[in-house]
Order: sequence, then structure tokens, then C-alpha cells
Amino acid sequence: MSQDKLVKDITSMDEDFAKWYTDVVLKAELIDYSSVKGCMIIRPYGYAIWENIQSIMNGMFKKTGHQNVYMPMFIPESLLEKEKDHVAGFAPEVAWVTHGGDEELEERLCVRPTSETLFCDHYANIIHSYRDLPKLYNQWCSVVRWEKTTRPFLRSREFLWQEGHTIHATAAEAIDETKQMLNVYEEFCQKYLCMPVIKGVKTEKERFAGAEDTYTIEALMHDGKALQSGTSHYFGNGFAKAFNIQYADKENHLVYPFQTSWGTTTRLIGAIIMTHGDDNGLVLPPAVAPTQVVIIPVAMHKEGVLDKATELCERLENVCRVDIDKSEQSPGWKFAEYEMKGVPLRLEIGPKDIEKNQCVIVRRDTREKHFVSLDDLETEIPKLLALVSEGLFEKALERRNEMTYVAKDYDEMIEIANNKPGFIKAMWCGSRECEDKLKEVAGVSSRCMPFNQEAHSDKCVCCGKPADKLVYWGKAY
Amino acid sequence: MSQDKLVKDITSMDEDFAKWYTDVVLKAELIDYSSVKGCMIIRPYGYAIWENIQSIMNGMFKKTGHQNVYMPMFIPESLLEKEKDHVAGFAPEVAWVTHGGDEELEERLCVRPTSETLFCDHYANIIHSYRDLPKLYNQWCSVVRWEKTTRPFLRSREFLWQEGHTIHATAAEAIDETKQMLNVYEEFCQKYLCMPVIKGVKTEKERFAGAEDTYTIEALMHDGKALQSGTSHYFGNGFAKAFNIQYADKENHLVYPFQTSWGTTTRLIGAIIMTHGDDNGLVLPPAVAPTQVVIIPVAMHKEGVLDKATELCERLENVCRVDIDKSEQSPGWKFAEYEMKGVPLRLEIGPKDIEKNQCVIVRRDTREKHFVSLDDLETEIPKLLALVSEGLFEKALERRNEMTYVAKDYDEMIEIANNKPGFIKAMWCGSRECEDKLKEVAGVSSRCMPFNQEAHSDKCVCCGKPADKLVYWGKAY
Repeated sequence: MSQDKLVKDITSMDEDFAKWYTDVVLKAELIDYSSVKGCMIIRPYGYAIWENIQSIMNGMFKKTGHQNVYMPMFIPESLLEKEKDHVAGFAPEVAWVTHGGDEELEERLCVRPTSETLFCDHYANIIHSYRDLPKLYNQWCSVVRWEKTTRPFLRSREFLWQEGHTIHATAAEAIDETKQMLNVYEEFCQKYLCMPVIKGVKTEKERFAGAEDTYTIEALMHDGKALQSGTSHYFGNGFAKAFNIQYADKENHLVYPFQTSWGTTTRLIGAIIMTHGDDNGLVLPPAVAPTQVVIIPVAMHKEGVLDKATELCERLENVCRVDIDKSEQSPGWKFAEYEMKGVPLRLEIGPKDIEKNQCVIVRRDTREKHFVSLDDLETEIPKLLALVSEGLFEKALERRNEMTYVAKDYDEMIEIANNKPGFIKAMWCGSRECEDKLKEVAGVSSRCMPFNQEAHSDKCVCCGKPADKLVYWGKAY
Repeated sequence: MSQDKLVKDITSMDEDFAKWYTDVVLKAELIDYSSVKGCMIIRPYGYAIWENIQSIMNGMFKKTGHQNVYMPMFIPESLLEKEKDHVAGFAPEVAWVTHGGDEELEERLCVRPTSETLFCDHYANIIHSYRDLPKLYNQWCSVVRWEKTTRPFLRSREFLWQEGHTIHATAAEAIDETKQMLNVYEEFCQKYLCMPVIKGVKTEKERFAGAEDTYTIEALMHDGKALQSGTSHYFGNGFAKAFNIQYADKENHLVYPFQTSWGTTTRLIGAIIMTHGDDNGLVLPPAVAPTQVVIIPVAMHKEGVLDKATELCERLENVCRVDIDKSEQSPGWKFAEYEMKGVPLRLEIGPKDIEKNQCVIVRRDTREKHFVSLDDLETEIPKLLALVSEGLFEKALERRNEMTYVAKDYDEMIEIANNKPGFIKAMWCGSRECEDKLKEVAGVSSRCMPFNQEAHSDKCVCCGKPADKLVYWGKAY
């Protein structure tokens, strides 16, 4: 039975990947649709994943010296307009507040799509001397972007995120910060979400509005589409000039400081679903799974079973996030339910197991069964959880490698883009024209120029002119 | 020197309480004003207090079976209008979004002032059977109310809060929940914020828009004004009827469930300031203080001092939230700085202390000096922190008792209201007219009808007619 498809009402991935995704987010009760078009309700199970993401990442931010703050959710139109590239990038997709109560506002306020302008406004207020630098701030909040087409977690009009905003005395320090935070994101995704990512820098076309450089981590989903999973921006002193942020350096000269920002969002939950999920539903990485082990009593009515299961649950509370299902549903129904919900380990215990002083532990990712002595649970469960994490990462990495192609010339590029979902590695001359053409003809965009450059040819895959930059191309969410 | 006023630039409370408050919030770097009128920036030190509040309270919510969720920040106008009392209470003070990008919206969206309507909309979607009940949900978010006059933490156009929203099969269960959460708030305020509160029920006039009953905890600030510190509302099945939320009970009859909501906000930070603060600045309750112990090396340039201070800091990290100030500022400057920032304990260590294997610990609240052996720090510091907590609570309770008066008749009421800031206990007949008159003539509103009723007379303090309800009256924030 371990190879059966227990959950019957999820569309299979191969049949319709988009439908599979929607089935999973709804049936695993991660979200519900709301009466507000394009905005989702994050239900307890989905929110608990986000809380675990927050808790781990917040710890990593604090360890690297960052402090949390809270900025207003509104930005006056005049403030948004101060940095020209920035407003051009965001103004077309913001929500505008025009009235407070019955009165029309003197100046429109947009609901923050991102908070660079607010942080700059604050920095101009509080930064006067080199002693005031650096400021390493972060905030957890929701932001709004008026998207036309939306999908739960991946693209919605409101989403939750964290946005780091830092300001430094020197360009070198700001660049180091930008790269440090990209490394934090990489470590978070690979270690805790078990999701391999490619680190690199965006082309000018794909850069954040107002940035001098945008660094990114790019993951590959089950269907071969790329998902930008976190970005880190270096601003130079452009924002400081626009907002007139100046400080007196040690020689008492007034100079402009240098800034960064970096963010990750609830779309990471979408990334988890599409990296690890299967036709039975969610598969959650142990580090962020709301429940890591679910205990299912078998033949629950038999004497001693429920007591023993409860006792195990209490013991395991010190070791992992554990839950027990004592409901009247059948064990088979429960197996299917927690498979769908992606709980990493299922612990089954019945009368025969109790006789043998053992239980059955089933891994969600491989469905392997382990018979474990009840005496060894405290040591075996952490080991099994670690094995699940490793297994998930290895499997995802293997798939990404299988779905990563090299295109040496234009025809090969088009052939792969049209027929093989995944990343395409190909050389690029650096011109916007080639990027635009590949987008138009092959539907692929430049995901990043990876830090690990390899030379697959010396000619641009699009125009054939000399090229020394390797780019990862792909269709993207 | 222990009685000196170390911090010179804070207005004294007696001189101008409002100015004192503003000085404290700005100079202790809790907030900064923003370019968005009526919205504040919560700076790292202020936000760290909020994070501690969240962390403790969130634990209390989870222990009582509640789950966190996230609802959209927008409410379509038609949804807000579904419950008539509710919309009447909130529509005059909401911010309206009318445009998304360049396009005018078909229907205006308000930025949530509170989320009853969104929760109801969701509940209508997910509740079908008695098996789906109860739902015990909470969310941490920001809300917006378009206030005309604002003050940091106490009243601002945007503020952070938690809002619990629960739904139950029976009225009795919902009422129990309402009271349970009021008790959670009471425990939180008294145990962790060291702030005594009066528990009671609001009069009809002061009830939440749409509630059948509003329970409240009321605290008394230093200046004798009351501060509503948390409320818990019982809705009956009014919202369920307005939103057509029905479930099939065990006999398969379709019936309406019963609801509650309850909330506390960042105004609790204002309550902390105005309950415990003094002319030297903040005094923070240890449970929510970002730094509980600050180590000040004295004669820092002398050999061994900095090493010893650093060693103590590392040792104490396992015991409390500890920080060390190694900056070049003088010890006197540092003493004043951390007094102003309200750090509960200051640990001074200099060459002579090291010789004697001791240090000096100074309590922020009483300024008592304690000489503590370096061998005993791990046991003495938790004890001292506990003493600070107890001391703060006792002092606040004593002041509240001193500032609580009984008025037996109208003249006495007016006399006290005009001359003695504080709570006034007086009997009330139950009529709205008397409430309105006391507000108009004496400037006091009914804070609550306390659960602990006492009979001070049998006549209404306002109209002299028979009265059996004791009310706490007061001027309020």
C-alpha cells in the first residue's frame, strides 16, 4: 500500500500543474480566497509555516546585527516621487488612498509597495555624523502591488514580507552587506527549505527600480519554471542624494552615505510547494513544518493504545513539533490527510507494536517505513528528520541538474526553450536587444548572471557577437 | 548622588505631563515622527518592547488554543456595510483606497480599521457543521483609523495590534471565551507590565460597534487619566446573521453560531511609559525591557576592567537580556543614558570592585545600590529583576489606590472631577442621559462597571434616582 495514491482529489502534476498547485494550497488549507480581489487569506496551517520561516530568518538577521523597526504603511505621493527611477518602477502598480473618512486628502497616499522612500526620509532625520552609521534595519510587514493576474503566494495584490534597509559610510561596506544578505538567503533556502538556489546578479533590465545592482537567488520549480526567491539590492548613494541624507565624516566633511535593501516574501511558501510537493500534496521541509511528526493510533479502541500514543506524544514534545490525531476517522483516512498536509514523519502505533515495544515511522518524502524501538524515539526522530531534509535537498538538486541545459547557439536556444522546461545556460553579449528578443521569441528572461561563471562559448547565443557573460535563462513565475 | 536628576533635558512631569511624555518617547528613541501625518515610525528600541509584548502574549494565546492567521488589509465597502451598527461606528474614520495604479476601482476598499467583517466572510466560507467549531483565530497586524488628533502610541492613524476573532456553537461558550481573554489581558498587564488594571464591563454607550457586551481592563496613568488597555467583545449571533454564517448542529438543524473579538495594541507601550516613567525618563518592566541589565565598565582604561566586564556580559547572556556599553562616553553620561532608557538594572564594575570580587548593581526604579559578589550574579540578578517587577506593581497599585475616589452625590462628583485627577467610583442609574451629562459637565466618561461591585449608596450620582450599578468614571486617553 505504500505506493498507492492515498489522496484522490488532487489533480496530478503531469495532467495540469497549475491546477495541481491550486488544489494543494486549498486542500491543505494553506489559504482561502477572500472577497478582496487578488488578496488571499492565509489560514492557520499556511501562517504557521510563515511563522517558522520568520522565526529562523529573524534569528539570522539578528545574528548579523540587524534590528527590527516599523514604518508607516502609507507613502505620500511627493515622497514616492523623490527618486525618479524608483517611482517610475512602482507608481503604475500602487493602491492610492484618496479619502480619510468623509474628507478628500490634500495629498494622495499610496499603500507601500516597498519602503525605501520611508526609510530614506527617516535616515535623513536621524543620520548626522559618522557615529550614526551604519544603521542595519529590517521590518516584517505586508506590502501592496496592484497586480493584474494573481496566484496564491506567487503573485498577490497584498503579500507578507521582510524588507531590510541599511545605510553605510562607504560603498564597500554597503556592497559587502548586499552580498552578506544574499548569502543569508542562500543559506536559509538551502539549509531550512531544502531548496537549491543559483546565486547571481541581475542584468540591468531585471534590476530593482533605483538600484545600481540587484543580486538574486533563483530556484527551479517542479515544472521547470524559475522562481526568484530573494533579492538584495545595492543602491550606491543615489537614494541618499535624492533624499539629501548626509553625514559629517571624521574630517567633518559632509558626504553621502551608501544604501542597500533586501527582501523575501510569502512566495517562499509557493516555492516550497512547487519544489517538494507531489501528487499526494504538500511535502514540507522539517525546519518549517508546523507539525514535524504526527502520531496515528491504530486500532484506537483497543485497550492501552490511546494511552500509549498520548504518552509518546508528551515525550516527543521536547524533541520536535509533534501532534496526535485522536479523531474518529479511520487510520487510512488519517494517513492520506497528513500525507496531503506534508507532515515529514508519520508515527503509527497499534496493539501489536506496543507488544513489541516499537512503532512504525513512515517518511513522507520517500514513504520508507522504519520500525523503531520505543526506547530510541528521542534519538531516532531527530535523525530521521535530518534524513528527510537531506533527502529533499538532494532530490531537488538532482532534478534541477537534470533540467538545466546549455545552449550554444540561437537554434539550440529556441529548441530547448520550446521543448525542455528548465534553466538554460547560455552566453550573452550584454545588450538589451538580445534580452528582449529572447523574451519575445523564446519566452525566456535572464534570471541572473551566476557568481560561478563558466564559459560555454565566446559568442552571444542571440546575436553571435562576442560575449563573455554566462546567463541563466528561463521562464519564470 | 543617587537622588540627583541625571537626565536634564526631559521636561518634568509636574510641569507639563504631555511634554514630559513626548520628550520620553523621542529621547528614549522609541519613535520618530514621519512624513505621513498622524503615523509614527517605531524605532528599534520601541519595536523591541513590542516584540517582547508579542512574544509573551502570543504564547498565552497559543496556550489557550488560539491559532494565528492573516486576513487582507482591505475591506470592500459592501462588506463593511453588512452589519449596520458596525459600519456606523467605523465608516467615519476609515481610509479609502479608490485607485489601483491608474485605474479607478469599481468598488472602494477601506484599509481595515478592525477585521470582524473579513473574519465573518471567511467563516461563512469554512463553517458548515458543528465539527467545524470552534475556530479560535488571532492575527497580528496594523490597522488604520483616521483620527483627527494623534499622539505617539496613544492614538495614531496607524497602529499595531492583535485582534482575536473566535466563533462558537453556543452563546455560553462564546461568553466564556470573552471572559477568558479578558483574564489573559489582566494577567499579562499585571504580571508582565506590572500595571494594575480594573476589570469590568462597558456601558452601552461605550460598547464596541456591533457588540452585545464589551469587557475592558482600565489602567490609571501617572497623571490620573484612565487608559483603556484591552477589550474583549461578545457579539451574540448578530454578525453571524448579518453574514449568513450557519452550521448544521448534531440534529442537522441549521443554526447561527456565536462570536467574540478581543484586542490590544501598541498603546500598551504608552501605558508602560505613563505608569512607571519618572522625571529621568522611561522605567521598563523587566519582562518587556529590550535590555534588562546594562553593564557599565568604570575606569575602562585601567587594566583588566574591560576584560572582566566582557566576561560578566558573556556569563549573564544565559540569565537575562544583557548589554555592555564600551563606548568612550563617561560613566556619568552612560548612567544618565540608561536611566532615561529605563533599563531595569545597571551593573557597574571598576578596578576596586574587581579587587573585592564584587560589583555594584543599581535598580532603575528605586535607585537602590546593591553590592553583589561576582560569584552570585547568576542567582542575584534574577532575584533583583523580580524585586523590580514587584516594586513597580506595588508602587503603581498604591498610586492608583491613592488616586481613586468615591463620590456619593452630584456636588461631590463635580468637586472631585474638577480637582482630583484619578478614578471616581460612583453609583449610576443606567441612563444614557446621566452619562452624557457627566461627560459634558465634569468631563468624565464611564470607564467600566467593575466585576467587583461595591454599593456606596443606592442613588445615581447624577440624577439621584435609584441606582444599583457601581461605575468607575474618569478622564481618559
